[in-house]
Amino acid sequence: MSSSFGHHFRIHTYGESHGGGVGVIIDGCPPRIPVTAAHIQRELDRRRPGQSDLVTPRNEADTAEILSGIQDGLTLGTPISILVRNTDQRPGSYDEMAVKYRPSHADYTYDAKYGIRALSGGGRASARETIGRVAAAAVARQVLDTLHPGIRVLAWVKSIQELTAEVDPLKVMPETIESNAVRTGDPSMIAVMTERIKSVRSEGNSVGGVVECVIRNCPPGLGEPVFDKLEADLAKAMLSIPATKGFEIGSGFAGTLLTGSEHNDPFRMIDGRVRTTSNRSGGVQGGISNGEPILFRVAFKPTATIMTPQETVTAEGENTELAGKGRHDACVLPRAVPIVEAMATLVLTDHLLRQRANVR
Amino acid sequence: MSSSFGHHFRIHTYGESHGGGVGVIIDGCPPRIPVTAAHIQRELDRRRPGQSDLVTPRNEADTAEILSGIQDGLTLGTPISILVRNTDQRPGSYDEMAVKYRPSHADYTYDAKYGIRALSGGGRASARETIGRVAAAAVARQVLDTLHPGIRVLAWVKSIQELTAEVDPLKVMPETIESNAVRTGDPSMIAVMTERIKSVRSEGNSVGGVVECVIRNCPPGLGEPVFDKLEADLAKAMLSIPATKGFEIGSGFAGTLLTGSEHNDPFRMIDGRVRTTSNRSGGVQGGISNGEPILFRVAFKPTATIMTPQETVTAEGENTELAGKGRHDACVLPRAVPIVEAMATLVLTDHLLRQRANVR
Amino acid sequence: MSSSFGHHFRIHTYGESHGGGVGVIIDGCPPRIPVTAAHIQRELDRRRPGQSDLVTPRNEADTAEILSGIQDGLTLGTPISILVRNTDQRPGSYDEMAVKYRPSHADYTYDAKYGIRALSGGGRASARETIGRVAAAAVARQVLDTLHPGIRVLAWVKSIQELTAEVDPLKVMPETIESNAVRTGDPSMIAVMTERIKSVRSEGNSVGGVVECVIRNCPPGLGEPVFDKLEADLAKAMLSIPATKGFEIGSGFAGTLLTGSEHNDPFRMIDGRVRTTSNRSGGVQGGISNGEPILFRVAFKPTATIMTPQETVTAEGENTELAGKGRHDACVLPRAVPIVEAMATLVLTDHLLRQRANVR
Amino acid sequence: MSSSFGHHFRIHTYGESHGGGVGVIIDGCPPRIPVTAAHIQRELDRRRPGQSDLVTPRNEADTAEILSGIQDGLTLGTPISILVRNTDQRPGSYDEMAVKYRPSHADYTYDAKYGIRALSGGGRASARETIGRVAAAAVARQVLDTLHPGIRVLAWVKSIQELTAEVDPLKVMPETIESNAVRTGDPSMIAVMTERIKSVRSEGNSVGGVVECVIRNCPPGLGEPVFDKLEADLAKAMLSIPATKGFEIGSGFAGTLLTGSEHNDPFRMIDGRVRTTSNRSGGVQGGISNGEPILFRVAFKPTATIMTPQETVTAEGENTELAGKGRHDACVLPRAVPIVEAMATLVLTDHLLRQRANVR
Repeated sequence: MSSSFGHHFRIHTYGESHGGGVGVIIDGCPPRIPVTAAHIQRELDRRRPGQSDLVTPRNEADTAEILSGIQDGLTLGTPISILVRNTDQRPGSYDEMAVKYRPSHADYTYDAKYGIRALSGGGRASARETIGRVAAAAVARQVLDTLHPGIRVLAWVKSIQELTAEVDPLKVMPETIESNAVRTGDPSMIAVMTERIKSVRSEGNSVGGVVECVIRNCPPGLGEPVFDKLEADLAKAMLSIPATKGFEIGSGFAGTLLTGSEHNDPFRMIDGRVRTTSNRSGGVQGGISNGEPILFRVAFKPTATIMTPQETVTAEGENTELAGKGRHDACVLPRAVPIVEAMATLVLTDHLLRQRANVR
Repeated sequence: MSSSFGHHFRIHTYGESHGGGVGVIIDGCPPRIPVTAAHIQRELDRRRPGQSDLVTPRNEADTAEILSGIQDGLTLGTPISILVRNTDQRPGSYDEMAVKYRPSHADYTYDAKYGIRALSGGGRASARETIGRVAAAAVARQVLDTLHPGIRVLAWVKSIQELTAEVDPLKVMPETIESNAVRTGDPSMIAVMTERIKSVRSEGNSVGGVVECVIRNCPPGLGEPVFDKLEADLAKAMLSIPATKGFEIGSGFAGTLLTGSEHNDPFRMIDGRVRTTSNRSGGVQGGISNGEPILFRVAFKPTATIMTPQETVTAEGENTELAGKGRHDACVLPRAVPIVEAMATLVLTDHLLRQRANVR
Repeated sequence: MSSSFGHHFRIHTYGESHGGGVGVIIDGCPPRIPVTAAHIQRELDRRRPGQSDLVTPRNEADTAEILSGIQDGLTLGTPISILVRNTDQRPGSYDEMAVKYRPSHADYTYDAKYGIRALSGGGRASARETIGRVAAAAVARQVLDTLHPGIRVLAWVKSIQELTAEVDPLKVMPETIESNAVRTGDPSMIAVMTERIKSVRSEGNSVGGVVECVIRNCPPGLGEPVFDKLEADLAKAMLSIPATKGFEIGSGFAGTLLTGSEHNDPFRMIDGRVRTTSNRSGGVQGGISNGEPILFRVAFKPTATIMTPQETVTAEGENTELAGKGRHDACVLPRAVPIVEAMATLVLTDHLLRQRANVR
Repeated sequence: MSSSFGHHFRIHTYGESHGGGVGVIIDGCPPRIPVTAAHIQRELDRRRPGQSDLVTPRNEADTAEILSGIQDGLTLGTPISILVRNTDQRPGSYDEMAVKYRPSHADYTYDAKYGIRALSGGGRASARETIGRVAAAAVARQVLDTLHPGIRVLAWVKSIQELTAEVDPLKVMPETIESNAVRTGDPSMIAVMTERIKSVRSEGNSVGGVVECVIRNCPPGLGEPVFDKLEADLAKAMLSIPATKGFEIGSGFAGTLLTGSEHNDPFRMIDGRVRTTSNRSGGVQGGISNGEPILFRVAFKPTATIMTPQETVTAEGENTELAGKGRHDACVLPRAVPIVEAMATLVLTDHLLRQRANVR
């Protein structure tokens, strides 16, 4: 188990989907940063189930309690502990899953690794585990706003299956994304994406897609070669989110089709600053931010939980069949948007503080 | 700067492309593992320039010297230090680059971060930095062979631009890959890929592509949820390699086009073991290996160094032009193959040791 | 702030003396270790105030709640989160301390470091912070009992000022220590030590002393040279406990008076094992346990809180006087005993798991 | 094995006493710090054997080679690798020791831990291992001088057996200490200490003693509660030095004899700053520096290598006798002085950089 992330702004998460609760400790947060429960709650509300008719009907208030590290709305510089109680416990609905491994879930691998497994709700492999990340990122967001105002981390649903949104990463506004339950940045795609999700859900099936994320106004100089390159830490952050299968930055896989003369980003002096006139680098060169927008994409597989019968085996090693019966979230993409933003915010805050230690 | 990688089997690299040398310390290697200089040299020889007429003509012997941690061909359990001297120093050929930022290189970002930069050869952003990784992985390879014989890490060139090889990850043999200078696993693509690389090189241009990698016979149970998931650590490892722009595991980005019922991997008992009858998970579920082959792909952009004039700026902030004059490696893919294998081997070895600490 | 301890069995603590509560996350605990709330509560009860008429009258139940990581009395291998609520909140009694720096407390240094400070009860510098450590060590204790039964960690009050107990580290029984409120291992010293503590308390004064600790049946081979030597990690662990001023192992400072021929521990084969016939090494040689009892001592200064007027300054920089009015614990030694045991247990468990990763 | 030290200014050492060499990588050093080989060599010369007729006659030039991270006398911000070759290899003189465990050396414990051991010269347990620490501290010294000029780290021999120097930690000058081969700060004790060392050496015996160290002009605010308290990290640093058995800060063990009213350090405003009028805290309160001189002492046992016959066992488990024949350093204290300074400098530099990341 390794539930710590970050080097200087460091978080430690805990909690199964059922049990006392889930939460996070944030260690290394600078003192005197304005943080209230409301800052945290706002992000948790974006992440939680039951927000719209598109996502899982599991309905938990997910109320954050700050246990330590904040006094009168200011951080103390000491560890910040945030707890979200579990309230909607219905282990009964998972009974069959306790003995049959759900295909493409983590049931089998947890048993293989630990020889024991949380008997309901997916345990630590549940999406509920991400609550601690989102709560910590709400604090990190305040650190960025205080130490380096203007940095903006913004994600949206780029595609659902082959349905692809056209979004200008430099101009899309958060209001546009939050105004629709799909959380796409392209208003022309809302209806068709919504229809697709509802359609596959009605069939007891599921779909995946791509979340795109931009970081605007990131200062140059963040990222720590050679192993903690900014894109390397972003890649790890994203692949640690449940259901992800890929990460690409800037030109990504499509960039492999170009030649060097097509791909290179020319430098020009613009408004007295070194800029690039294209951004196939995705805002990072040699592992260090270059001041251009950081742009990356994350692939989410279709949700593993489906309602149709599937071949599987029991924990005792017998072939059998399983049909999902619990909660069914036909598409995680809308809820993944704030989680992608959270992980990017954590990476950025950590690297900002690391750079402060050494800058002259 | 962060030049450490791994939690338990931990490596620390150092060295600029010019200067005394490059190297690595390996800390946390189990004792009494058979390792000789020949094991290390074999992998360094696969990585070094000048192996064929396809890669950079820079020709350095890259001879590894073991400074500590090994006695009479066995590891002592103490830190293993390996040094490779720099010999082919021609800083003169980089003079112009010292004052003009090479487009899509790390010249500008190193200056932005550190306020100082190695004045020749790319410093720590040079491909030469990977020597320490490859040397360390040669030791890791011996750890795997001793503690868990049978694990096989194998990579090949999957594509050069749109030229795509057909390779069966379960059957391709290392001899097939090593037998051709392109290091593809598909004999039918050798000629056309070779021609492409030579063609772009003759134009002073460059190309990128995709390296694919399989880990066969990985035991189930490796990977540490939630942040050190096996795929998350692999993603970080791969994105820390120079010139990489993307990572995907199993179904990857293409998997986002499928529905859950198409994507899920059914479980079946086969030969008394839990197996999946498809492998869109890519050998990892919930961040933990499931015993199936681990399969992933890494995107490499076209080499930034090209011979045609490009717009850029000087370190003093003047617009100018730059045409590459130094060494020109039109395609890094063949040399990237052993580096991808090296990083995968390091991740796997680290996770194997971590799991040993807790297993019961 | 750095509230993490350990490399493989790793704990993260949080919590101010006033606020929602204090607690700990344990990461890296092996799965299927038997742990119940009762195991944790037993150790917390030994540490808490109000146990006897010798220690601080602050009376909190200190009830541990397990939030995650344990199911049906067995660890899951996932992070174990333990929370102890704060209940006895009387910030009023600390009003004067909020503006005047208490001499030899951490009030001034917290302000100097963070520019902000918990306004009551000492915040993170309070003895209450150690609850998370003790709770985590109760879990570690179970890990030792499961993976390596027989290891015994036992501490006692060696001295109160000049009053020094004669204790045989190889024979003293926990029942002897726990049977008296002073927690000394020498029955002949109970009365005089008790009298001393009551006497200084009646004067509004305080006293310090030395806690001695033995680890019996520690296997040889634990400790990681060169920086994570067993004695180095023990020293750090002990000096991280509030009010400690010194650490010595084996012969310690007194050993500097001997010559080498007097100090060296001869080796002899005894019962087929390599043993030493004296133990001035204190059970550790070259940073690694040698199988002999590990024996060390920790110096605790007299409690800083006293009831007599003292010179000090205000947070605004004015000279003033302060007389303690809050709770007054005239001697922390009896309560320090379980904390010393806890930190030693954490160090040992961490090193046991680290050794398992590499052993062959 | 764990050969890394520090969190932000992080060093990794390697090397056995015999083999290719010993050295260090420094990671996290700020860029543009003036460092030359001469800075490093000066400290290595203070540490090396053969400086005077008081210390071990082993005579190695110990010449430092900078392999990376420094260009034209300035740090690049990249890892600094420093190598010192082994030259004085006389494995023959250790033959008997290869089969007989030297009492109070690390021969037996290395075998117990690793099942293998460097067959000559003590391997990683040799004093030669400290070369990497001293070289790294020479770089750290330059970081302190650049970022926070005025901090002074100074150590001296406080006692040899019962012979105790009277030294004023606030006034003693480095010239006074360096001017005598004993490295004591009390001129009146030079002759008697020298005589004692020569006397025990002539008997083939050895002696230990105490090194005292002061850090002057340390700014308030350094140290990271609760586990990385400044005194905790100093304690670990000191107990990681070979042959150490104890650490105390400020009043130390003697402070346990005082009452609180005697021990507390009153605060007064002096020259507009918060000061204490006594310094029993030793410059640290609650784990954080308070701006007063940091004062601590380290106990060194008598050297284990003596020339008289001792009881021991062979690696095969036979009782036997051993009389030392190799090099004989009757007292390590004079050479320990620069090593104590080095470790204190590393701790301080690391904490200074950590504080910079969070300060506002």
